[in-house]
Amino acid sequence: MNARLVFNLLGKALGIEGILMLPSVLVALVYGGGDWDGLLIAAAVAASAGFLLSFMVKPRNENLRAREGLAVVALIWLTMSLFGALPFYIERAIPRYVDCFFECVSGFTTTGSTILTDVEALPKGLLFWRSFTHWVGGMGVLVLSLALLPHVGAGAHHLLKAESPGPSPGKLMPRIGKSSRTLYQLYLGMSLLMFLILMACGMDWYDALIHMFGAAGTGGFSNYNMSVGHFASPAIDFVIGTFMLLFGINFSLYFLLLRGKFRQSLRSEEMWVYLGIVGISVLLISLAILPGLGNWWEALRQGYFQVASIITTTGYATVDFHLWPQFARCLLALLMLLGACAGSTGGGIKIVRVTVLGKSVAREIKRCIRPRSVVTVKMDGNALEEETIGQIQVFFFAYLLVIALAALVVSLDGFSLEVNLTAALATLSNVGPGLGMIGPTGNFSSFSDLSKVVLSLCMLIGRLEIYPILILLAPSSWRKN
Amino acid sequence: MNARLVFNLLGKALGIEGILMLPSVLVALVYGGGDWDGLLIAAAVAASAGFLLSFMVKPRNENLRAREGLAVVALIWLTMSLFGALPFYIERAIPRYVDCFFECVSGFTTTGSTILTDVEALPKGLLFWRSFTHWVGGMGVLVLSLALLPHVGAGAHHLLKAESPGPSPGKLMPRIGKSSRTLYQLYLGMSLLMFLILMACGMDWYDALIHMFGAAGTGGFSNYNMSVGHFASPAIDFVIGTFMLLFGINFSLYFLLLRGKFRQSLRSEEMWVYLGIVGISVLLISLAILPGLGNWWEALRQGYFQVASIITTTGYATVDFHLWPQFARCLLALLMLLGACAGSTGGGIKIVRVTVLGKSVAREIKRCIRPRSVVTVKMDGNALEEETIGQIQVFFFAYLLVIALAALVVSLDGFSLEVNLTAALATLSNVGPGLGMIGPTGNFSSFSDLSKVVLSLCMLIGRLEIYPILILLAPSSWRKN
Repeated sequence: MNARLVFNLLGKALGIEGILMLPSVLVALVYGGGDWDGLLIAAAVAASAGFLLSFMVKPRNENLRAREGLAVVALIWLTMSLFGALPFYIERAIPRYVDCFFECVSGFTTTGSTILTDVEALPKGLLFWRSFTHWVGGMGVLVLSLALLPHVGAGAHHLLKAESPGPSPGKLMPRIGKSSRTLYQLYLGMSLLMFLILMACGMDWYDALIHMFGAAGTGGFSNYNMSVGHFASPAIDFVIGTFMLLFGINFSLYFLLLRGKFRQSLRSEEMWVYLGIVGISVLLISLAILPGLGNWWEALRQGYFQVASIITTTGYATVDFHLWPQFARCLLALLMLLGACAGSTGGGIKIVRVTVLGKSVAREIKRCIRPRSVVTVKMDGNALEEETIGQIQVFFFAYLLVIALAALVVSLDGFSLEVNLTAALATLSNVGPGLGMIGPTGNFSSFSDLSKVVLSLCMLIGRLEIYPILILLAPSSWRKN
Repeated sequence: MNARLVFNLLGKALGIEGILMLPSVLVALVYGGGDWDGLLIAAAVAASAGFLLSFMVKPRNENLRAREGLAVVALIWLTMSLFGALPFYIERAIPRYVDCFFECVSGFTTTGSTILTDVEALPKGLLFWRSFTHWVGGMGVLVLSLALLPHVGAGAHHLLKAESPGPSPGKLMPRIGKSSRTLYQLYLGMSLLMFLILMACGMDWYDALIHMFGAAGTGGFSNYNMSVGHFASPAIDFVIGTFMLLFGINFSLYFLLLRGKFRQSLRSEEMWVYLGIVGISVLLISLAILPGLGNWWEALRQGYFQVASIITTTGYATVDFHLWPQFARCLLALLMLLGACAGSTGGGIKIVRVTVLGKSVAREIKRCIRPRSVVTVKMDGNALEEETIGQIQVFFFAYLLVIALAALVVSLDGFSLEVNLTAALATLSNVGPGLGMIGPTGNFSSFSDLSKVVLSLCMLIGRLEIYPILILLAPSSWRKN
């Protein structure tokens, strides 16, 4: 383990975090809130810790092996969450540190689960920081760091592999520094566009920024207790709903579009499956809630927004879907598990993986019918390697295993199976709200500290696609080679 | 498709079913119940249909290909359930045919889910038939048929592959006819032993037979509304609990024991994992229910029985575990998913599969840490082929997919997520009771007909390990080659 390099990188990340807190200080000052000093102190603490680590611990070499890449990513997310929780704690806006940590992990991992019973009671600067972590986390603290620090060297692809959601980050990045910068520019551009459209829909700049942060990062923190339902505006519902869906699409498709490769981008099977699932789910849910609303337009409006929000693992809500018919709720729970496309800011198992899994079931049936036939599993017309399919299958089992174990621990608190299961699901898939008391109008405040820590871990495990956190916990990754 | 052979085999199975109904007629007569005639009519109908099919449709050749083997197994289970439902319907003991079918599928698949609100209201002959289907289904109608009809020929291993639970039936059967007869003798011997011990514990012969049928087949139908709790006897709890566990162990281990290969049978990793999970679960659940009972002995007694019942997918109960603390209930739901050992009469995913899945996660972590290392997955000291691992992984996904889809359909009835999920889980894993209104003191009567049919299909899909039923539904398996 190249511990010196790991600590050095950790220091750099903390330094960046300190800088990232400064806009929130500015917002606090603009609104004349008393929360500017807490944010500034936290920024100073993070920056000093970062300075100390990165300038005191100089790496002897820049070699980063696979396990170190994964471990450093996990460590960075964990540490940034520990420090990012400080503003809430210093300001006493959230009295207990475990809650501050939960809220900040939820922000950076773009989950959007909250322990706050009254979001609107928080000062504007802190709310800004809370949502800003979504935006930072959305594209990955590391892609950001890579874009700013392109000298990480040969080991960087291990970082990127751990960081970028989905099984195949490969195609996008012939040269890592450059393509992560392109990615970042794309993200910035789409964010800016969304911000401007939200302003055009009548939001003030603060609300527009907050909800842009939440949608771009597919996070879901709002500054209103009623989430996006607060605005009660069909235009805003449609804009946020559509941008959530756009941020849930593999960014390499936008990359191809930018390069003029229109036809190639349309060949993405994952995108079509994703859009197909969205379409069918909107239809089914609208049908399910139609009897209660008696109005097709309203049913479609609610169905579209909630499906877009859940499948992209954002977690915004315009209505309390916990009150919907069981079928609609059950379908939403399934969409939570699915998640968005790989290479997007969304969480979950990812559409591409589920597609491959579905195809491997179809292959198994074909094999049973004709045992001697050789069938390959194809994506976008190319046969997948068996090892890749195997990795996806193992990922699926590991994912379900984490859900099962987390739900088991959470069940110690004595809430219903629905709450336990959707708490694990909503945090691991980085969705945010679940069903029952943790539904869109509820929150996670009633859980025990143990559950909060376990669910925070779930958010990190889900965001980093399972292995980095497990590797961090595995003793053999700390042994000398 | 060798349709003639398929129908011929179907006829033979129906003929056997007619004969299998005769003991129930006898029981009805012994107890002087008015249900003897319904049973006799049903037996006559099944036997005549079987006679017609098997004697009118003579196969032109005895070749059975893989897909036909799987399709015939699925068809036989389906048809036997359709005919096995007749006694309940003719006697008007269960007024609606869909309920009769559900009850009979539940019997043959050794599930034990019931739509009866008052079991004790049924006449003794019908109750005997209901439980006897467990015993017949337990070891597989087909293994039974094979033992009696050893001339099925070269294609028989396809039958056996579909029939016997678990991924590797291979070792047990160098020659199919002979070893299925050995298997059957083992099953008969253990059943007889259990019957005698239950009699020694003070049960009358009828109760002893009913509960032996339910435990041997890991089915779970009782003739009392309070299930095994009716007897309120620690001795009976212990005997039934232990025999359930024994019937959940891979029968090839008993086979080895009979041959004196004691050491080889102890080398089974699956058995140790199974016993380990049982031990840990009993301990955890006893700890969880201890505060409510205040008595270690009572907690262990209840924990042992319920864990044994659920992990073996039997479904007997001595207490209403739906009233237990959430942690204990959540753990039971997980055990439902796990199931018993392969090659036993139990259902579920099977311990051996879950062990392999767990090992493949461990391998993936090792690979992340040291990407260039080559790691094989071993069971019982032998490296598994990658194809086998792949099949197990696909099986896991397919299993979860069926649960998700079934729960989604059942959710149309508007019950809670807990009910929808555990209904799908308890039927697919052939457990019987779930949680909530379908818990040990509840039943499945409130579901819609659609849900009942879907859950019946789940029982068949689970019992036949998914593929045979899917192949039966796949159009390409009916196409001419």
